[in-house]
Amino acid sequence: MSRTRFKSTNCPIARTLDRVGEWWTILILRDAFSGFTRFDEFEQSLGIAPNMLSKRLEGLCDAGLMEKRRYSARPPRYEYVLTERGRDFRPVLLALLAYGNRHFAPEGASVVVVDAATGAPAEPVIVDRHSGRLLSEPEFAVVAGPAATEKTRARLAARAERLSAKPLSGSQT
Amino acid sequence: MSRTRFKSTNCPIARTLDRVGEWWTILILRDAFSGFTRFDEFEQSLGIAPNMLSKRLEGLCDAGLMEKRRYSARPPRYEYVLTERGRDFRPVLLALLAYGNRHFAPEGASVVVVDAATGAPAEPVIVDRHSGRLLSEPEFAVVAGPAATEKTRARLAARAERLSAKPLSGSQT
Repeated sequence: MSRTRFKSTNCPIARTLDRVGEWWTILILRDAFSGFTRFDEFEQSLGIAPNMLSKRLEGLCDAGLMEKRRYSARPPRYEYVLTERGRDFRPVLLALLAYGNRHFAPEGASVVVVDAATGAPAEPVIVDRHSGRLLSEPEFAVVAGPAATEKTRARLAARAERLSAKPLSGSQT
Repeated sequence: MSRTRFKSTNCPIARTLDRVGEWWTILILRDAFSGFTRFDEFEQSLGIAPNMLSKRLEGLCDAGLMEKRRYSARPPRYEYVLTERGRDFRPVLLALLAYGNRHFAPEGASVVVVDAATGAPAEPVIVDRHSGRLLSEPEFAVVAGPAATEKTRARLAARAERLSAKPLSGSQT
């Protein structure tokens, strides 16, 4: 039920979550970026039940992020590979990785991004491609786009008012 | 059961998903960035069942992304506000937003990021903070960090081999 509602929503975050917004799905994508392509590789890496894995892989194929390919005719065997749309999900994974390292790795980072040529550690941040500026608040705002419905416009307008009107809270704590 | 496993994993993506890897949780964060703070505001915006919302808000407070604050003593009333750790989740939301706009908005973008001063549209991309270079493959790799367990090291080493050894597949398609 949720899937249907999310798919028809006007919000790009909700639409993306509708396709990939589930633990297993995102971890399957992570493993696909690691080079895994076969059902048993994903199964072993994730310790996921086969029926669940099957369902998630199907969902990723339906959403166009992965593609099922036959790599052997006899016996017929299939592998699952990232499509271009799937590969384009990497920034989301890197943002999650950076967040996890900052907030949930008290013992230090176990997985890091490095310059492949030099091995120098990279620090993933999100910027505006054109200006190179960090997309921080309040310099960059989220606003209604050309295809926004009336409802989305109203929500985002309310947000702007709300953010400027609401006093800093928590003084009673 | 999944929660336990994910929490104890060595992977920063899985650890983050353990805290926020669920549709509702991420949409609650989205709405919190919109300035919503009160239970009924989230409830109305998301059309979520109160018991579900209550559980998700509690999870976000437990994980340190939100904080429950009393804003009225009589009657006692509470609001939920983003903590610093919660605000730091914004890059993940922006990456999801950009992805949704690129892949799941055939009618055009309904929500966009703009320079708040000029209104010029921004294009969120993920780069290395130090060099400003796009974190694209194969220039930037994901490798074992200082706190990696043996298992994580093995997985990431296998990945490197696998990626260089595996021939381009799909010629049978």
